[in-house]
Amino acid sequence: MVDFEVVEYKPDARELAWTFGGVPPVRRVTPGTVLELWTEDAFCGKVRSETDLVSRVCEFPFVNPQTGPFHVDGAEPGDTLAVHFVSIEPSRDWAVSTTVPLFGALTATHTTAMLHEPLPELVWVWQLDSLARTCRFCARDRAWAVDLPMDPMHGTLGVAPANLEVRSALVPDAFGGNMDTPELRAGVTCYLGVNVPGALVSLGDGHARQGEGETCGVAVECAMDTVVVLDLVKGAACHWPRIESDTHLISTGSARPLEDAFRIAQADMVSWLHADFGLDQLDAYQLVSQTVEAPLANVVDVNYTSVAKMAKRWLPGREVFGGTHAKLRAVATEYRKRRGLPFAGRPPG
Amino acid sequence: MVDFEVVEYKPDARELAWTFGGVPPVRRVTPGTVLELWTEDAFCGKVRSETDLVSRVCEFPFVNPQTGPFHVDGAEPGDTLAVHFVSIEPSRDWAVSTTVPLFGALTATHTTAMLHEPLPELVWVWQLDSLARTCRFCARDRAWAVDLPMDPMHGTLGVAPANLEVRSALVPDAFGGNMDTPELRAGVTCYLGVNVPGALVSLGDGHARQGEGETCGVAVECAMDTVVVLDLVKGAACHWPRIESDTHLISTGSARPLEDAFRIAQADMVSWLHADFGLDQLDAYQLVSQTVEAPLANVVDVNYTSVAKMAKRWLPGREVFGGTHAKLRAVATEYRKRRGLPFAGRPPG
Amino acid sequence: MVDFEVVEYKPDARELAWTFGGVPPVRRVTPGTVLELWTEDAFCGKVRSETDLVSRVCEFPFVNPQTGPFHVDGAEPGDTLAVHFVSIEPSRDWAVSTTVPLFGALTATHTTAMLHEPLPELVWVWQLDSLARTCRFCARDRAWAVDLPMDPMHGTLGVAPANLEVRSALVPDAFGGNMDTPELRAGVTCYLGVNVPGALVSLGDGHARQGEGETCGVAVECAMDTVVVLDLVKGAACHWPRIESDTHLISTGSARPLEDAFRIAQADMVSWLHADFGLDQLDAYQLVSQTVEAPLANVVDVNYTSVAKMAKRWLPGREVFGGTHAKLRAVATEYRKRRGLPFAGRPPG
Amino acid sequence: MVDFEVVEYKPDARELAWTFGGVPPVRRVTPGTVLELWTEDAFCGKVRSETDLVSRVCEFPFVNPQTGPFHVDGAEPGDTLAVHFVSIEPSRDWAVSTTVPLFGALTATHTTAMLHEPLPELVWVWQLDSLARTCRFCARDRAWAVDLPMDPMHGTLGVAPANLEVRSALVPDAFGGNMDTPELRAGVTCYLGVNVPGALVSLGDGHARQGEGETCGVAVECAMDTVVVLDLVKGAACHWPRIESDTHLISTGSARPLEDAFRIAQADMVSWLHADFGLDQLDAYQLVSQTVEAPLANVVDVNYTSVAKMAKRWLPGREVFGGTHAKLRAVATEYRKRRGLPFAGRPPG
Repeated sequence: MVDFEVVEYKPDARELAWTFGGVPPVRRVTPGTVLELWTEDAFCGKVRSETDLVSRVCEFPFVNPQTGPFHVDGAEPGDTLAVHFVSIEPSRDWAVSTTVPLFGALTATHTTAMLHEPLPELVWVWQLDSLARTCRFCARDRAWAVDLPMDPMHGTLGVAPANLEVRSALVPDAFGGNMDTPELRAGVTCYLGVNVPGALVSLGDGHARQGEGETCGVAVECAMDTVVVLDLVKGAACHWPRIESDTHLISTGSARPLEDAFRIAQADMVSWLHADFGLDQLDAYQLVSQTVEAPLANVVDVNYTSVAKMAKRWLPGREVFGGTHAKLRAVATEYRKRRGLPFAGRPPG
Repeated sequence: MVDFEVVEYKPDARELAWTFGGVPPVRRVTPGTVLELWTEDAFCGKVRSETDLVSRVCEFPFVNPQTGPFHVDGAEPGDTLAVHFVSIEPSRDWAVSTTVPLFGALTATHTTAMLHEPLPELVWVWQLDSLARTCRFCARDRAWAVDLPMDPMHGTLGVAPANLEVRSALVPDAFGGNMDTPELRAGVTCYLGVNVPGALVSLGDGHARQGEGETCGVAVECAMDTVVVLDLVKGAACHWPRIESDTHLISTGSARPLEDAFRIAQADMVSWLHADFGLDQLDAYQLVSQTVEAPLANVVDVNYTSVAKMAKRWLPGREVFGGTHAKLRAVATEYRKRRGLPFAGRPPG
Repeated sequence: MVDFEVVEYKPDARELAWTFGGVPPVRRVTPGTVLELWTEDAFCGKVRSETDLVSRVCEFPFVNPQTGPFHVDGAEPGDTLAVHFVSIEPSRDWAVSTTVPLFGALTATHTTAMLHEPLPELVWVWQLDSLARTCRFCARDRAWAVDLPMDPMHGTLGVAPANLEVRSALVPDAFGGNMDTPELRAGVTCYLGVNVPGALVSLGDGHARQGEGETCGVAVECAMDTVVVLDLVKGAACHWPRIESDTHLISTGSARPLEDAFRIAQADMVSWLHADFGLDQLDAYQLVSQTVEAPLANVVDVNYTSVAKMAKRWLPGREVFGGTHAKLRAVATEYRKRRGLPFAGRPPG
Repeated sequence: MVDFEVVEYKPDARELAWTFGGVPPVRRVTPGTVLELWTEDAFCGKVRSETDLVSRVCEFPFVNPQTGPFHVDGAEPGDTLAVHFVSIEPSRDWAVSTTVPLFGALTATHTTAMLHEPLPELVWVWQLDSLARTCRFCARDRAWAVDLPMDPMHGTLGVAPANLEVRSALVPDAFGGNMDTPELRAGVTCYLGVNVPGALVSLGDGHARQGEGETCGVAVECAMDTVVVLDLVKGAACHWPRIESDTHLISTGSARPLEDAFRIAQADMVSWLHADFGLDQLDAYQLVSQTVEAPLANVVDVNYTSVAKMAKRWLPGREVFGGTHAKLRAVATEYRKRRGLPFAGRPPG
């Protein structure tokens, strides 16, 4: 019999967080708690039409608001926090994407500093159809539209950083944060190393879908109704965020240049196979080299994020993080049953 | 009625090429020709057991041998050469992977110069089963093996470079070359801009399979029996190699740092949608941002290679490169029928 | 008649700061104040012999201690803080340099992640001679020593960051911080954009000397007796730290990859010449291209730092930041006269 | 008594080389020969006024013409070629600098691919005064001019590449080539590892002066009358170009990203001190870290170039490359005496 507490939390505008670390917790929860959350979109819901330009309606640094942080009882540095995504559902029937001046992969930026004028600033408003599971892209320049599959995810999930730091919600790093990987969808468990007592986990930046690399720097941004289950793996270190689905193990790395993000994720996967599956380091290096999938997450944020994705079916059948994913999967199943929910969204993979 | 000429060419050891450009053609062929080829493995077949270390048995620069080049009649600078892969089949029942001193993504190299000693040099011998379509990985350190799906591909395909250059077969760049992308499998058409009269195309570096990023720098290297059809798209430019499958359009970029390889591939995809599908540049940028897949190809070679992969089903139904892929697909189908061949390998996409 | 207040502040071990931002001020001072400070070395004075390995005697994140922060009355976001270095003198007759495991430019690191074992960890103890102005390097491996010129500088100087962030004292970024540039020596004025009320400026990480790039990641680390004068330029923005000497204007950029740090510093210099010297942007770009010196600062820290250095004699004779450097130079001269001090250290430039 | 042969060679337009490698030698010379050469400017002398835009008057790949290659008798792979610059003097009284569309450090380029329009294309014509040793920069936008010190140098000097390659004259790499470092001025000796019989050395791309980093991608380009002495160091390897002046040892590295160029140069300097001065590797690493100068060369070319510069006075008094620099310095002195020439240009260092 699976049992769990359910906590609902829908922040109002004054309760949003703009950083990882540096913010007092909004709630204290115990490991095993199911959290029913609402997250505002990355533009605080202020971009609603083609005339709502980000540079006019948003005020930095008040973008990419986070829901949280949550203090997880018993979490201490050296532990790993597990966050299982039960469901991620757009809470409005629209979303927006935009260009933002001097932000994105195919434009000069504040760090890739150049003498060009910024590219034009535009807004695209998307219609979301939760039943059909589609997001409608309408071209701005002509009458053409296409329905793309809805594949909801969270761009940000993180804990308070190490080293006494407080980081903007726009930053991905070892503490998680703005990784912007489509792998963070319903059905997966994300593991984050705890840096401060209580972990202080928060999340936000829902995307109805996103391309790999998030080329223009903005995804199909929308507010989300999201349900997660939290758990704690005591005494287990996790140096960089890891993700587990029913079928895959996923390591992440966030750094610049992009090859360093790649190196971190790949080296972490080699270490993972070595430590948890008993493979010699060079055997693990070799197996990873021939099997890993390496879809990019973002090539636009303060750090770029690369993921290393390994199919479980090619590994010896062993549990990682003490079987936490299976345990939280069972909680999710029970929760869905009680709520009368089908499994929503595309199956993890 | 599809008609075509078939040319068979199996080079002996003295006929292999070590560069793109700088080598006289081994054959002259006309557009539309089906080429039945054999390619030697990247180590010239000299690494056959765990004691055949690359640093001992191979002599630089005589690695990564190319079959070709072929002079394509009528090809001139400003044209685009199309190479459709009818089939790629391992020609031996074994393959090898290795570590190579000071080469790979997770080691100091000659350019990422450090003061470390090289990692240990090891060889893994793989058993290939063409019927079961598997490659067997055997760990070196313990008695553990796993059968991985065979997914044959060519690491290198290229034409003579522009700017009077001759490049090592280890280099990927705008002329193609050592891109090491698993996307170059049977069923796809690769487009390469022609830089010199006759194009001078060659290929090699067969991999029974490869992870994305080719982390250790070496894939499951094997000799290949490969069939391609060549065609010419007159007057069509192609600045970076592009690949078309039945389901996807794929742009590639090869550069360092890795973010520049990403930028090239993504910007090329934006240009492609703009030029061939009539989307405004910013609409194309936006659509790419929300739909593109961005699996890495290699993060180890002289240039790193990133690909941008776009599903055709999300685009207006238009032909690219004058419908060359469909035309060559028909040739491939007819060829297979005549040869009594099933469609081999995993379907493209 | 130059007048000024003098404030002396020598922190004890419990008063040191480990971050930029996130720390209450240790003193409130008014613009124009001369501060007589003491800074502990980057290892908190705990590395004193060849057996004091950093990995054993230091406890992260308690490294690179800062003296401060100081709240500057009247400083508001949008202003620029000026910090003029009157003198920087080693406060002990010894200094240390070391290797640190997985840190430095010629080793695998936590972000340039590889499978190598760390390089050996060693300590070099240097004898400093303040009269002869030398630092004695003694080889560890054999009996060989050389006296190098003393050229004291501060590796870190920064204000509280923007965007609600708190950053480790090991980080260089737009707020200044751990830039590790030898240009920050006695006689120069450093300009830092103010992000929070009071600016909250601190400094530390004294180096008796340092090579450009700080290749191994550690300089000739020593405690310092340092005198600075603070001033405020109201309503003047400064996006990245700038430095002014009697002879040069210097822009800095801190980012990864290193080419982005270069771009930031160069683009800032182009903007500076455009805004303050009336040159058209492209004329400024061209003049910078033919005249700038571009010595590296650090290629080892969380961000790499590049500087762009322009001789004033090649520019129209105009003041920058309202003539602040000349004004603080006069304060420094008067202060030295009262204290009976010669001008110490190598002349700026 | 110093004796030597003098060979004069002034190529006409049809004799220029556009690549390193792939070109038959224009002359055979013996080690010890003094070569009196003329080099055309990087734009083939076609940019002579503000209306001669590079994109209109130059035809790629026919830019950056090289004088040579020279076959040096006896040079074999494994040897090192020494090229001592006796004098480098502008051969016209004018020079040009320009912007070039999609080329330079502060603009989108073909590899740092973006969606921006190119920056404006402009030409600056400089007046050179060989007696006053000045180059006059005249702003385009207003009536302002400044006389900058003349500091003549060669942007390119290289031998035929290894690995059967032929590289554009725009490329810097291990074979030398388009390094664009101001360190290549009169008075220095450049060492280049020989890759093919005869070495096949050529040079060009004279600059009346250049900033460090060559920010806009173009220096003060001019034709040069240049005198060099060639010599051969048999059996001495040189993996990356090295430079020796009377006062400094200089290592170079050319790669992307820029941190890799830095790593190559720094690691080469560490190796140099280890091999030729008997320092342990870690002692050398430490000494380099505290003493090296690291001025950038170019951050615009196909590879970026970083140099590591070490003052000889801080090293044990030993010869490198068998005392070749001193020997060639003596030849240069004798040659100048015979020609009645003063020492021209700024003293090295």
